[in-house]
Amino acid sequence: MKKLIIASTSTVHGSGYLEYILPPLSTFFKEVKTILFIPYARPGGISYDDYTEIAKKAFNKIDKRVIGIHEFENPKEAIKQAEGIFTGGGNTFELVNQLYKNDIVDTLKETVDSGTPYLGTSAGSNICGVTMMNTNDMPIVYPPSFKTLGLIPFNINAHYLDPIKGSTHMGETRETRIKEYHVFNETAVLGLREGSWLEVKGESIVLKGNLTARLFKKDKTPVELEANKEINNWF
Amino acid sequence: MKKLIIASTSTVHGSGYLEYILPPLSTFFKEVKTILFIPYARPGGISYDDYTEIAKKAFNKIDKRVIGIHEFENPKEAIKQAEGIFTGGGNTFELVNQLYKNDIVDTLKETVDSGTPYLGTSAGSNICGVTMMNTNDMPIVYPPSFKTLGLIPFNINAHYLDPIKGSTHMGETRETRIKEYHVFNETAVLGLREGSWLEVKGESIVLKGNLTARLFKKDKTPVELEANKEINNWF
Repeated sequence: MKKLIIASTSTVHGSGYLEYILPPLSTFFKEVKTILFIPYARPGGISYDDYTEIAKKAFNKIDKRVIGIHEFENPKEAIKQAEGIFTGGGNTFELVNQLYKNDIVDTLKETVDSGTPYLGTSAGSNICGVTMMNTNDMPIVYPPSFKTLGLIPFNINAHYLDPIKGSTHMGETRETRIKEYHVFNETAVLGLREGSWLEVKGESIVLKGNLTARLFKKDKTPVELEANKEINNWF
Repeated sequence: MKKLIIASTSTVHGSGYLEYILPPLSTFFKEVKTILFIPYARPGGISYDDYTEIAKKAFNKIDKRVIGIHEFENPKEAIKQAEGIFTGGGNTFELVNQLYKNDIVDTLKETVDSGTPYLGTSAGSNICGVTMMNTNDMPIVYPPSFKTLGLIPFNINAHYLDPIKGSTHMGETRETRIKEYHVFNETAVLGLREGSWLEVKGESIVLKGNLTARLFKKDKTPVELEANKEINNWF
């Protein structure tokens, strides 16, 4: 049975890396001693080593070991052998680019589908959707495809932001951007606010955290989904 | 000699479509009676006809006729025959996708290079750069390439936004995103604030409007460029 935690963000304001979510992660990774970390998204362009160090420090607090996928000679084997997997945030275009470059898209999907627990934050959550088409990131590299893992039957918009009242900025709001997306695409989009995450167990998907999440479906008025309830029936 | 106006936005807060920039446009298009409008970016997903209607109304105020490129059977010929060209804002991915789909990337570049006056706003300005890699838009379609017209030797970040002081949102700032871009790319990026535009005449590029623009170069501290001065020596 597949088991995922799909989080909007690694970090909420005023707290350390992963800190807000460590208690549920401790339960989620109960059977796991060592977590394979995928640092490909390189937030701020930091190196794989530096990024892996950040993940190590956080997971050390709940007694988990972390190894970066770049420390293995064969990334495909590393995924297959992993007890648990964590893909961190950063730039989704570069993350997806590296997943294709290392030819691990299918392996990662199959491994998570068959039960290896997976944590994603931000870009690492975007790739759980059908495509990466609802990322907020800048297209700093050209990946071979926007198709992602399809571990859930919809797309994620991480760090979802409500329109800012009284803003004088003329750039598009997040809602307008997702509306534009639905002119060209069918797949639903879940706007996941910072501090929210999804817990996926097989077909069950529960929205966790204190906030509602905003669901966008083509040609429908957006809906706020309640926290701590199964949301899979919406898809 | 090539002649371009490359504007951050079509509209500034509290004013009508193109209103803030109509006086310089009147001078810029002095010799032009009819402007060819490229509506491919479809802001909010509106139709080509509806979008062209908006452009028509604005240019009517300075006695210019506007025709949408979609009203022609042969878009390549429409570009070659145009007296002046305007590409409006919206989604840069879809705009670039349609430029490739209609096979007019080279024709548009050659036509503007050889002197047909060109106005771009927002997405229509992004495509004047070397690549579209500094767009803020959502990747709602997968274009065949991120390469754009290269009419200027740098990239544009339109609607440039300074970091918001005291923000509790953990998504990346514009500056962080551009810094990530420079981990993977060499081309300089100009952050053009709303209300600013570039006037290009041959090799001369002047920053217009009341604001400074923020220049990002790989491995350099960003610089604020002064308005109403030539900036081409920075590149």
